[in-house]
Amino acid sequence: MQNFIFWNPTKIIFGKGMIAEIGAHAAQHGKKALLVYGKASIKTNGIYDQVVGSLRQAGVGVVEFSGVKSNPILSHVNEGIALAKREQVDMVIAVGGGSVIDESKAIAAGVKTDGDIWECFLGRKEPQGALPVLTVLTIAATGSEMNFIAVLTNDATQQKFNLRSPHLFPKVSILDPTATYSVPKTYTAYGAVDAISHLIEGYFTSADPDTPIQDRYVEGLIKSIMESAERILANPENYEGRATMMWAATLALNGLPAAGIGATAFPNHLIGHSLGALYDLPHGATLSIVIPAWMRYAANLNPAKFAQFARRVFHLTAGGSDTEIAEKGVNALKVWFRKIGSPVSLSEVNIPESELRRIAEHTQPLAQKWQIAQQYTADVVAGILQDCK
Amino acid sequence: MQNFIFWNPTKIIFGKGMIAEIGAHAAQHGKKALLVYGKASIKTNGIYDQVVGSLRQAGVGVVEFSGVKSNPILSHVNEGIALAKREQVDMVIAVGGGSVIDESKAIAAGVKTDGDIWECFLGRKEPQGALPVLTVLTIAATGSEMNFIAVLTNDATQQKFNLRSPHLFPKVSILDPTATYSVPKTYTAYGAVDAISHLIEGYFTSADPDTPIQDRYVEGLIKSIMESAERILANPENYEGRATMMWAATLALNGLPAAGIGATAFPNHLIGHSLGALYDLPHGATLSIVIPAWMRYAANLNPAKFAQFARRVFHLTAGGSDTEIAEKGVNALKVWFRKIGSPVSLSEVNIPESELRRIAEHTQPLAQKWQIAQQYTADVVAGILQDCK
Repeated sequence: MQNFIFWNPTKIIFGKGMIAEIGAHAAQHGKKALLVYGKASIKTNGIYDQVVGSLRQAGVGVVEFSGVKSNPILSHVNEGIALAKREQVDMVIAVGGGSVIDESKAIAAGVKTDGDIWECFLGRKEPQGALPVLTVLTIAATGSEMNFIAVLTNDATQQKFNLRSPHLFPKVSILDPTATYSVPKTYTAYGAVDAISHLIEGYFTSADPDTPIQDRYVEGLIKSIMESAERILANPENYEGRATMMWAATLALNGLPAAGIGATAFPNHLIGHSLGALYDLPHGATLSIVIPAWMRYAANLNPAKFAQFARRVFHLTAGGSDTEIAEKGVNALKVWFRKIGSPVSLSEVNIPESELRRIAEHTQPLAQKWQIAQQYTADVVAGILQDCK
Repeated sequence: MQNFIFWNPTKIIFGKGMIAEIGAHAAQHGKKALLVYGKASIKTNGIYDQVVGSLRQAGVGVVEFSGVKSNPILSHVNEGIALAKREQVDMVIAVGGGSVIDESKAIAAGVKTDGDIWECFLGRKEPQGALPVLTVLTIAATGSEMNFIAVLTNDATQQKFNLRSPHLFPKVSILDPTATYSVPKTYTAYGAVDAISHLIEGYFTSADPDTPIQDRYVEGLIKSIMESAERILANPENYEGRATMMWAATLALNGLPAAGIGATAFPNHLIGHSLGALYDLPHGATLSIVIPAWMRYAANLNPAKFAQFARRVFHLTAGGSDTEIAEKGVNALKVWFRKIGSPVSLSEVNIPESELRRIAEHTQPLAQKWQIAQQYTADVVAGILQDCK
């Protein structure tokens, strides 16, 4: 195990009926909230009314800010920062999925940080603080509700970059599984892929061979995510399936699976972020395309770990070398992505082979920021993309 | 999954060489610390010098308070509270295992709470606050370093009771696995038993049959604890074994395995606490005596869960009914406790059969406090104890 610091102060309020608690928690942080959301869907499924009703009862005023995109963009964040300053709100309340929470974090930090908040995403400076962020989660996927990460796309430069800062931990996140009943099957599948991707990036890229606690955490969470995705796709209002998916996706990126495994890389996100920024594809869809190809590439470098994954997650215990079993595990995951309806090839999302070089080149600034440009050159990325056709 | 609130704000600083960080963290909480420890062993193994050196360098003054017992007692806690008040310390720094940390939490709460702190352990009132507690862990076992629980024995009444309060979360806990190199084999085994006991109490007493995330967490941690105990007993300075044991024991009782599984009971601790209070036995030793007998009793009530445990932890996948496989799992755990050198019968610790009734009666006040007196009557407890002879 490697040395680490683990600290995660977000309070999770989990379960049926818990959205009604938002007002009481918000009231501890002030009198006026910027209420951030995406589309009108939270008005049709009743979540908006639950949130606003609870806030009103607790005496917390609301300034609405909607229109967050699936891939949240800097220009909209800047509008939110200006509005939050003008209205002198005390906190930001995100009602939505990872996109809405990420944008809310960026707005909250932007209010307390001088100058252009994008400078922080570029790694050129640190946020000086942030307004308190509270969240009401409506999609299980990114884990943003219990971590200090925000991902944002600069719509002027088409860069999709992330920011990590202890100021960004939500104070309180309310996770009511029934709030995800109306998430369509496609986005349920993308959420499952996203949560699995968060787990396997660290699991496979850690160089430490002696992390039994973390390995078993990850394997157990992946199995629970896969089981619950199938329950949900069979019946979108299966409470236990929705609850397991929601909590597993939160735990997948709350710092715990990564604590003690040392330096890791996010190569699937590297390529996925470029696909998302260039073609505005859903994040989970980009990942299910990239992951099987990346795994085939990486399994050659560390067949033992990929074979462990195949044995423990897919119970592929038949004879064969680690390399053979690893390959079977990769295929099993790809088959499962296809089964739940997430794309596994670029052709399914209409990206022709002629684009591969452009995508590969586009990954390089982020690869440099993440300090993996030496391993993930444009040529290596292009090779992986070739395998995604 | 059941509704839950999860919040754990303790910062964990984990790894080789991390004790040197204590001064910098302590300095954030004031200028003067009550330094609580047990025996002089921390002076011979160098940990005392590391801690005091780091505090001195950071300008934090030290008031020493030693002599914490293996089962910490109220009269000593009251001495600590008086000393802390007299010296007007700003914080309490625990250097030791669960006993020292629990006593430090009780002192910290006692300083900020009017009247007798034991009233809080009796459940008659809540702590009004607590001094900041920082810990430097030297034994992997209780998980006290990352939770809000303190266990104390009232030496006047021989009651061993616990207190739970959000004020008791340590601010910072430093976990350096090398600090546990000198823990003798017996106490290493007791620590492993204790950590396993924390995991199985909730795992087996939850009434919710649909907790796949939590089940796999628990099963994975138990496997990691068992593997690491064997590595340590073969070589006490096996860093990876010590590191895995230390982190797994912390995670076993930090609230996460229990989040979402609903109401649970601590029947093994109920009986173990009586054995500890009456005969001053090490906590882990009392648990390895009680657990196999309790499991045999409880497996009859819920054979499916005990069979799952046997299959997943001990890979007992051969044919047979759930009841038969459950029984094999109980035996396998008992055999393993014996293998690592923790007692599995009352006769090994010289408690004669004539004492059983007295022990069973002694459990009843705590059973009432924990609201399990209807299920765990003195007769039921005596029956379980009969099976521990």
